[in-house]
Amino acid sequence: MFTRSSRQLRLVAAFVLLCSWSAIADDGMWTFDNPPRKQLKELYGFEPTQEWLDHVRLSSVRFNDGGSGAFVSANGLVLTNHHVARGQLQKLSSPQKNYVADGFYAKTLTDEIKATDLELNVLVGMEDVTSRVLASVKPGMSAKEALDARKAAMAQISKESKEKTGLRSDVVTFYQGGEYWLYTYKKYTDVRLVMAPEEQIAFFGGDADNFTFPRYDLDMAFFRVYENGKPLNTEHYLRWKTSGAVDGELVFVSGHPGSTNRLQTYAQTEYQRDCAYPMRLKSYERRLALLKTYAARGAEQARQARGQIFGIENGLKASGGEYRGLLDKTLMAKKAAEEKDFRDRIAANPEWQRQYAWAWDTIAATTERSKASLRYKTFRQISGRAFTFATTLVQYFEEIKKPNGERTAQYQDANLESTKFRLFSPAPVYPELDEAQVADGLAHALAELGPADPWVKIVLDGKGPSDVARELVRGTQLADVAVRKALFQGGEKAVAASQDPMIVLARKLEPLNRDARAWEEKNISSSSARASQAIGEARFAVYGKSTYPDATFTLRLSYGTVKGYPMNGTVAPSKTTLYGLYDRSYSFDQKGDFALPQRFIDRRASLDLSTPSNFVSTCDIIGGNSGSPVINKAGEYVGLIFDGNIESLPGRFLYTEESNRAVSVHSAFIIESLRKLYDAGPLADELEGTHQLGLAPAGQK
Amino acid sequence: MFTRSSRQLRLVAAFVLLCSWSAIADDGMWTFDNPPRKQLKELYGFEPTQEWLDHVRLSSVRFNDGGSGAFVSANGLVLTNHHVARGQLQKLSSPQKNYVADGFYAKTLTDEIKATDLELNVLVGMEDVTSRVLASVKPGMSAKEALDARKAAMAQISKESKEKTGLRSDVVTFYQGGEYWLYTYKKYTDVRLVMAPEEQIAFFGGDADNFTFPRYDLDMAFFRVYENGKPLNTEHYLRWKTSGAVDGELVFVSGHPGSTNRLQTYAQTEYQRDCAYPMRLKSYERRLALLKTYAARGAEQARQARGQIFGIENGLKASGGEYRGLLDKTLMAKKAAEEKDFRDRIAANPEWQRQYAWAWDTIAATTERSKASLRYKTFRQISGRAFTFATTLVQYFEEIKKPNGERTAQYQDANLESTKFRLFSPAPVYPELDEAQVADGLAHALAELGPADPWVKIVLDGKGPSDVARELVRGTQLADVAVRKALFQGGEKAVAASQDPMIVLARKLEPLNRDARAWEEKNISSSSARASQAIGEARFAVYGKSTYPDATFTLRLSYGTVKGYPMNGTVAPSKTTLYGLYDRSYSFDQKGDFALPQRFIDRRASLDLSTPSNFVSTCDIIGGNSGSPVINKAGEYVGLIFDGNIESLPGRFLYTEESNRAVSVHSAFIIESLRKLYDAGPLADELEGTHQLGLAPAGQK
Repeated sequence: MFTRSSRQLRLVAAFVLLCSWSAIADDGMWTFDNPPRKQLKELYGFEPTQEWLDHVRLSSVRFNDGGSGAFVSANGLVLTNHHVARGQLQKLSSPQKNYVADGFYAKTLTDEIKATDLELNVLVGMEDVTSRVLASVKPGMSAKEALDARKAAMAQISKESKEKTGLRSDVVTFYQGGEYWLYTYKKYTDVRLVMAPEEQIAFFGGDADNFTFPRYDLDMAFFRVYENGKPLNTEHYLRWKTSGAVDGELVFVSGHPGSTNRLQTYAQTEYQRDCAYPMRLKSYERRLALLKTYAARGAEQARQARGQIFGIENGLKASGGEYRGLLDKTLMAKKAAEEKDFRDRIAANPEWQRQYAWAWDTIAATTERSKASLRYKTFRQISGRAFTFATTLVQYFEEIKKPNGERTAQYQDANLESTKFRLFSPAPVYPELDEAQVADGLAHALAELGPADPWVKIVLDGKGPSDVARELVRGTQLADVAVRKALFQGGEKAVAASQDPMIVLARKLEPLNRDARAWEEKNISSSSARASQAIGEARFAVYGKSTYPDATFTLRLSYGTVKGYPMNGTVAPSKTTLYGLYDRSYSFDQKGDFALPQRFIDRRASLDLSTPSNFVSTCDIIGGNSGSPVINKAGEYVGLIFDGNIESLPGRFLYTEESNRAVSVHSAFIIESLRKLYDAGPLADELEGTHQLGLAPAGQK
Repeated sequence: MFTRSSRQLRLVAAFVLLCSWSAIADDGMWTFDNPPRKQLKELYGFEPTQEWLDHVRLSSVRFNDGGSGAFVSANGLVLTNHHVARGQLQKLSSPQKNYVADGFYAKTLTDEIKATDLELNVLVGMEDVTSRVLASVKPGMSAKEALDARKAAMAQISKESKEKTGLRSDVVTFYQGGEYWLYTYKKYTDVRLVMAPEEQIAFFGGDADNFTFPRYDLDMAFFRVYENGKPLNTEHYLRWKTSGAVDGELVFVSGHPGSTNRLQTYAQTEYQRDCAYPMRLKSYERRLALLKTYAARGAEQARQARGQIFGIENGLKASGGEYRGLLDKTLMAKKAAEEKDFRDRIAANPEWQRQYAWAWDTIAATTERSKASLRYKTFRQISGRAFTFATTLVQYFEEIKKPNGERTAQYQDANLESTKFRLFSPAPVYPELDEAQVADGLAHALAELGPADPWVKIVLDGKGPSDVARELVRGTQLADVAVRKALFQGGEKAVAASQDPMIVLARKLEPLNRDARAWEEKNISSSSARASQAIGEARFAVYGKSTYPDATFTLRLSYGTVKGYPMNGTVAPSKTTLYGLYDRSYSFDQKGDFALPQRFIDRRASLDLSTPSNFVSTCDIIGGNSGSPVINKAGEYVGLIFDGNIESLPGRFLYTEESNRAVSVHSAFIIESLRKLYDAGPLADELEGTHQLGLAPAGQK
C-alpha cells in the first residue's frame, strides 16, 4: 500500500512539475525473494543480479539478541554495534573487568573470548509454503480451529525441515498472513569477542543524542564465528571500502528490522495511540525511575543496572517519538486516506467485497477487546531472569507432551535448541537488582490491579511486595546454572517436587497463565488472525506483490541515497566529521555523556579530523536493523547502521523520505580509530583485506 | 502583561513543585528608566547600580541603518555585526574592491575609510513627557483631532529640545501611548571602517544556518567614531573579557530591538496571521525570485544584488518563523488567555470598564478596515533609491511649509538633518538593478491592482511596465549626488520645473499619496491610536509598570542566562567551538555557504580549536538587536549578539524561555581570529586594553 501511494505521488509529481524528485520515496524493507527491482531500475538505473542478492544475503548475520551484523572478512569476522553486543559484553564482565565501559581488544586469536549465550543466524534458505499452510484450513472451521490448523501446519513444516536439514527452520508470516515462508538458518553458537571500544565513544552523547543526527558515535563491536574450534572460513563476506559512500550515492541496508505497524488497520493504529503507547510509556517511566534509584546505591549497582537503563531510555525515546507520530494529525490523516483507498478498491469489486470487507469490523471489535487484556499483560509480570528460568522449566514439561503444532512457539521442536541455549546460559544473575525490580513490579501490580486480582492474590498471598520479592529472590537457587541443569535433567518430577520459591510460584501461576492464553486466543488472536489474514489476502488481490510486508525480524533489503535533510530551520549534512566529535565534547565542557575516552584526548593530534565519522541515508530501517551493513552497488561495506534520526521514529507507522534517515558509522572512522587509537592495526588490515590471520584466503564468489 | 503571566506561572511552580526553575521567564526588553530590578534581585541576586546602568547605556550605540553596537575602546572603537555594517561595506565597494566579500583591515588610523552615510546615536538623555503630550488632547476632540494634537505636541517638544541642546531629539511612544518620552541622542556621522572579515565567515552557513544554532559565525565589523577629525575620546566603553561568560552565567544585552507585537490585541494578532504575513511572505518571495534572476546575469550583477538577496532571505526566514508561531494554536491560545485575563480585570472595575472596554472593539473594527489598504501599501511601490530621492525632494518643499507638528515625521525639524544626510549620500546607485526591480514591481502592481487602479494609471499611463521602468531609470539623473544637491538648492521651483522622469512621476503621485495618507489617518490611524492609547492606559491601570513596552528601536536592556536548550530530540549546548566550524564546513565538503575563507584553511594549525565560537543565552532580543553587546555583571564585554535561534522567531508575539535563545559571537573567537588569522594584533590589543593607539587612555567612570 505504501509503495502504491508513493507511485501515485510520483504520477502527480510528473504532471505538476512542482514536487521535487524526493517525492518518490525510498521506502520499503523488502524480502530477498521480492527485491525492489523495479524501483531500483527506475530511480537509480541499477539492476542487482541474483548473485549480488545471494552474496549480500549470505554475508548478513542475525544477532538473536535482537540485532544485525555482517561478515567482514574471510575468517568469520562479524561486525555489529556496540549496543547490540552490549548484553554479551555485560555478561562477560564482572566487578573486576568492565568490558562495556572499558572496551576490549584481542590482539591474537587466543585472546578472543567466547560469548556466553550468543546465537548468530545466517539465512541460507527461503521457501514459499503459503499454499501448504493455507490448505490446512478446511471450509467450515471456526476461527479458533483455523488458527490451530495453521499453527499445526507451520510447526510440522518447521519440524520436517529441521529433521531433514539440521538447520534452524522457522515458518514466518508475511503480509499479515498473505504469505508464509520457511526460512532456514545456519546457526552459530561459538562466537567470540574480538574488539569493542569504550561505551563512552560507542554511545557518545548518551540518551540526549540517541535517535538524533548529527552524530559522532563509534558504535561498533567485532566478533568472530568459530566452527569446530576454528575461525569460520567465510565464503560470503562484504569487502571493505574505507572511503565509504559519497553524498548522493545509492546504498543498501541488509538487516533484520524487528517490527513495524504500517499495514495495520486504522482502528489498530488508533488503539496504539490511545491505549498501547500511553500504557507502555508509563511503564517505561516507572521502571526507569526504579533502576536509577538502584544505580544510585553504588558503583557496582550502577554497573549492573546500566544495561537495563540503556535499554529502557532507548525504548522510552523510541516509543516517545513513535507516539508523537501517532499524535500527529497529518500522519493519521495519511493512514486514514490509505485505508480509504484500499477499502474503496475492495468495495468496487463485489467478489472482493464479499470475501474481505467484513475483516475491518472484526479487527475493530477484537482491538476493542484487547483493551481489557492490555492491563493484565502490562502488570502481571515478574522481573528478572531467574523467574524466566522457572517459567521455562515449568512450561517445558507441560508443553513437550503436546503435539508439536499445538505448543507455544518456543517449545516447538525447531526451537528447542535455542530455548535450552538460553536456559543454560552461564551469564551472571544480579540478585540485588532482581529483588529491587521484583518488589517494584509487584507494588505496581498491586496498585494497578488491586488486591482482589487473582494473579496478585496468588503472588502476594497476603504479604507485602517487598517481603515476597525478598523471599523469592533470596530463596531461589536458579541463578546457578548447575541447579537449572539438574532440575532439567530430573525432568517433570524434579520440577514438580522442587521447593525453590521461584519454581513454586511459576507452578502456581501456570493455570492462570494458561487460562489467560486461552482467553486471548479465543477472544482475540484467532478472530484477529483470521481477519488479518483476510486483509493480507485482500492486499495481494488489490495491490499484488508491489508492496513489502511489515518487519518481522527477518532479513530485509532497504535502499536509499546518502543525503542530508531539512532540520530545525537549517539543513543537516549527509555526514559528520571527527571535528564535530570534538566540537560536541568541548561544547559541553567534556562533561557526562559528552566526555571522550582518554585515548581520544591523548592521541588527538594523530587523527585526521576531517575523517567522516557518521553519515545518513534515506534507507528505510527500524530497531533490529542495528548493526546492519550499509552496502554500495559493488556490494562493498561502506557503513555500519546504528540508529535512526528523531524524524524517523514515526516510521513505525509511515515512512517519510523528506526527513527519515538511517544513521551509520562511516567505514573510514572505523579504520582511523582502529589504527590510530586502538593499536588494532591487524584488525584494520583484516578488514581492508591486507592481512588474513595467516590463513588461506577463502574464495569469493 | 507578559511579566505578570510569568509571575503567575511562578506562583504555580512554587506550589506544585513540578515546574522547573525555567518556568520563570527571562523575558523583557526593558527601558533604561525602568530596569527589571525586581526580577534581577529575585532571580539572580543582582542589583545594578544607577552608575552601572548609565555606563552600559552610554556605551551602547544605535546604528541608524537598523542595528546596534557598543563602544569597546577608549578611542571611539565601535563593534557591531558584519551584517549591520553590510550596507556600508557595499556602499564603499566597487567592481574593483569588494569589502563585503573580501573584508577589510586598516592597519593604521590613516587607513580607516569614512562610511558614506552612516549615522550613529548614543542615548544621552531620557525625559518623561507623557503629561505634556496628553495635556494637548482636550475634552470633546475627535479621534483625528486628538491624534493631530498629540503629534503637534510631540513635534514641538522635539523641536524645543533640538534647539536647546543641539542633540537629536525624538519623542517616542511606549506602551502604545501609555507613556511618551523625549529621548536625546548624541549623533555621530564621521564614522570610519576599521575592520571587517570576509562575508564567508561572517555569514558562514548562509541562509540555511541563518536564525539557527549551533552556529559558528564571525559576524563582526569594527568602526571608529571621529569627532573633529580625531578618534573620539570615549569616556564610556565596555571593557573586554576574552574568556567570555560561562554556562549558567547571568548576562545582559543592551541594544535596540526594532519592533515586537506582544502588546497587540488578539484581533490585531489575528490580522497579522490572516492578512499581513501571508501578503508579506508572498511579496518577499516575488522580490527574491527577481533578484536571483538578476544575480544570474553575471558576477557584477550578483555583487550588486547580494545585499538585497541577503536582506530578503533574512526577512523571509524571520517572517516565516514568526508566521509559524502565529499558526501555532498553543501560542494563539496563550495570547487569548492573556487578553481574557486583562479584559476580565477591566470588567471587574466599573470605572475601568467605562473608560477602556470600548477600545478592543474599536481596534477590531479598524483592523478590519486595514485589510483594504494593505493591498495598496504592498503593491503601490516603486523600487530603488532613485525614486526615494525623487519623493523626498518633492515632499520636502511641500512639508516644510507646514507647521512643524503637522509634518510627516522625517520632515520635522528634529529629523531634517538625518533626512538630508540620506538624500546627499554619495553611496552608489545600480541603475540596471533598479530597472529590473521597478519593472517587476510594476508588473505585479498591474496584475494585482488591475489597469483601472488610479495609481497604476498614473504610473503606467497606458504603457507596459518594462517600458516605464526603462524610461524612468535610464532617464533619471538622480543617481548623481550633485544633481540632487542642485535640485535641493534650487528649492521648490527647481523641483517643480524638473523634467527628470522620476521627479515628474513623484509629483504626479503626490496628490494620490496625500489622499491615501489622509484616508489612512482618518479611517485607521486616528481611531486605532486613540484605542491603543486607551489600552495602554488600561494596562498601566491594571498591571502598573511591572511590564515592559513593545520594542520601538529604542535602547533596551534584556537579561538572561548562558544556557543550552532542548533541540530536535537532543540538547543544544550553550556554546560551540572552532572544531564545530570545521566540522560543518567539511560535512558539506567545504561547498557553497559552508566554504571557509582561505586563511582559515591555511592557518588552521595555528588556532586553538577548542576556542568557543558562538554561544546562546535566554536574553530576550529581536531584529535591531544585531550588533548589541552581551555584558556580564561587571559590565564587561563577553559577546556580540548577531541572531536568534529558529525557536526565538515567534518571540515577536510571545517569549518562551524553554527554547528562545539569543545567539552571539564569543569574545574569545574575536580575539583568536584577529590575532591568528587577520594579523590584526593591534586591534586585539586595543580591545584587550593593552594598546591605546598611542593616545592617552580615557578615564573610566
